[in-house]
Amino acid sequence: MDYNSIFKAAIERLHDEGRYRVFIDILRTKGAYPNARCFHGHNGPKPITVWCSNDYLGMGQHDKVVEAMEEALHSVGAGSGGTRNIGGNTHLHVELEEELADLHGKEAALLFTSGYVSNEAALSTLGKLLPGCVIFSDELNHASMIAGIRNSGCEKRVFRHNDLEHLEQLLMEVPAETPKLIAFESVYSMDGDIAPIAEICDLADRYGALTYLDEVHAVGMYGARGGGISERDGVADRITLIEGTLGKAFGVMGGYVAADKTIIDCIRSYAPGFIFTTSLSPVLVGGALASVRHLKQSSEEREAQQAGAALLKDKFRTAGLPVMPSVTHIVPLLVGCPVKAKRISDILLAEYGVYVQPINFPTVPRGTERLRFTPGPCHSEQMMDQLVKALVEIWGRLDLEREAAA
Amino acid sequence: MDYNSIFKAAIERLHDEGRYRVFIDILRTKGAYPNARCFHGHNGPKPITVWCSNDYLGMGQHDKVVEAMEEALHSVGAGSGGTRNIGGNTHLHVELEEELADLHGKEAALLFTSGYVSNEAALSTLGKLLPGCVIFSDELNHASMIAGIRNSGCEKRVFRHNDLEHLEQLLMEVPAETPKLIAFESVYSMDGDIAPIAEICDLADRYGALTYLDEVHAVGMYGARGGGISERDGVADRITLIEGTLGKAFGVMGGYVAADKTIIDCIRSYAPGFIFTTSLSPVLVGGALASVRHLKQSSEEREAQQAGAALLKDKFRTAGLPVMPSVTHIVPLLVGCPVKAKRISDILLAEYGVYVQPINFPTVPRGTERLRFTPGPCHSEQMMDQLVKALVEIWGRLDLEREAAA
Repeated sequence: MDYNSIFKAAIERLHDEGRYRVFIDILRTKGAYPNARCFHGHNGPKPITVWCSNDYLGMGQHDKVVEAMEEALHSVGAGSGGTRNIGGNTHLHVELEEELADLHGKEAALLFTSGYVSNEAALSTLGKLLPGCVIFSDELNHASMIAGIRNSGCEKRVFRHNDLEHLEQLLMEVPAETPKLIAFESVYSMDGDIAPIAEICDLADRYGALTYLDEVHAVGMYGARGGGISERDGVADRITLIEGTLGKAFGVMGGYVAADKTIIDCIRSYAPGFIFTTSLSPVLVGGALASVRHLKQSSEEREAQQAGAALLKDKFRTAGLPVMPSVTHIVPLLVGCPVKAKRISDILLAEYGVYVQPINFPTVPRGTERLRFTPGPCHSEQMMDQLVKALVEIWGRLDLEREAAA
Repeated sequence: MDYNSIFKAAIERLHDEGRYRVFIDILRTKGAYPNARCFHGHNGPKPITVWCSNDYLGMGQHDKVVEAMEEALHSVGAGSGGTRNIGGNTHLHVELEEELADLHGKEAALLFTSGYVSNEAALSTLGKLLPGCVIFSDELNHASMIAGIRNSGCEKRVFRHNDLEHLEQLLMEVPAETPKLIAFESVYSMDGDIAPIAEICDLADRYGALTYLDEVHAVGMYGARGGGISERDGVADRITLIEGTLGKAFGVMGGYVAADKTIIDCIRSYAPGFIFTTSLSPVLVGGALASVRHLKQSSEEREAQQAGAALLKDKFRTAGLPVMPSVTHIVPLLVGCPVKAKRISDILLAEYGVYVQPINFPTVPRGTERLRFTPGPCHSEQMMDQLVKALVEIWGRLDLEREAAA
């Protein structure tokens, strides 16, 4: 059996399709982010500016977060040493779950090692516990939600992205007595558009469905206390389960779900991806606790991020660069060709010390390949001007189309 | 649709079966481990000794590990801010993967957020890439391996635990030209027994199968450099893929696989559980790097652990306590009844300040319920004597059987 040639062929396919990924090897400089050092393809590290991080608010270098992690590291130690059930349930975990439940106005919350695992574990467990459940899934849902739905064994009906009419049509086709779950995201991270949450809840009410909302690209950043779009829109109490991450705006690592006590107890008690894994390091939990608490009472970072995103979009438009119509902090620039998207990214890194990853198929549909910028409170206007200047030069060099200045 | 009563019934079933889990809420005291504080059911924290942690060597409080984490925290920051492909690939990740590849004598290694995810992602991806693959799985394999095998979509054949004859019989039934993968563990964590790795490799050679070895309860603890049982037995080069964890003997958090370059590249490129998740925090990676490097050159912790385990088994036997026949660092005491196992654990915690979790079905077969002790280099002989005294008293109080002193 020639296994090696099978594996080699699998890698060849990626090269052929232009989808083979090369990881850019960087080290951020705490306190100076978005400044970082790039180790990739150079002799020794080279200074760069990071424009594609999901540490949206720079909380990964916030004094309170770093101090809390240092405190946990020195008082408790490096790891938890066990699953939540066997030795790995620290008091910090209990406190953070209470804080997250409060953030979303829910009775309880549950921590996972990542947002990916929280989606996979929660969706698969809910689906397995509801006999004959049908899951209605937005076509742009994240890979982790798709994995959870598949592993639930439930029948899945995919509705067109944010399309209420299509969702209703699918809901109508399923008998009233069949359990139903609508799974969707608030902010879709590649386009920066937002789901009509209230209207989806209306449909859920009308057709007797539970609602599952992924807020990973919104928690910390929207709502008066960082509770996400569901807080901003005043609809958190209408959502059955809210899923979030500690690894993006909160700047640390880990995922969670928040819901009523019984549902959380079910997931806690039945999900293998929760039960059979070493719990989050107390160091991460301590940092996340400080981050969530800080962003509950400080809106400064959120406001600076929104102002930064608006300013960058404006500068792109003024320069005639094809910024896509995002209504959030995400600033995508359309390229429309995988090879060119990669080429622009390579030139930016090599010649301008700007790090932004190209986003190609299958993360986005073919023909919509793009660069995705995530300006935050730490990106200065000067950095933006340098970025725009670089992009205008490269756009010219590669003969890409520019729009009339807005 | 009365969803609430469905979820409530699911929780009731666990209560009825005596399987409802209550997490004991503790905080370890760095530098003083196995000493910790227990917050559970008391007014204020109470001092306890932890006897059931998988931080087997106490590396979670080792100076080198804590210092490396502090260094990473202060130089790089709290989180990685992205997936490995989009901003989350730090130079520390690259270094740790090189260190782990070297540990197992493999060409390459790949980090995951947990051992659970590494098993799920690696097994499901290998299975999907090999057309028509049949996976041969030891009946006691961990839940994460079972999840990976199920998600691979492959046909699965379960062989009796460590039973070479049964494995061969199953291998013979599958045509020579069918791709095959044998998935097993080195140390089985609930019994403390060890797989016959060389003999399984012989069968793999004879029938043309790949081999997948989970070493999570062995890495750091066996072999001259902590490469696990496969290093100790000199058979690492015969194993296709070795999976390990950073969250047990290495004292931090995270998982990994090590294999040849092409296989690692395939998993890196195709596994959704790797691709679509925020990478390990650089703080964890820095700590794990220090831990792996230390245990490569220091055998002091391994030797002290083996001596401690031998001493505790001996003390249990001398006291007539029913220690099970483990050949490793794991010391299980047979109780044989879920209610009594829980009761002993409760008395130990409430009256003796000893924390050891009862292990009940489905983690172990019914009738073999047990207490599972993990003595390490930080448990003193005095602690052991206190533990034995407490157990003897409780064994008497609950009218449990004791064997003639050995």
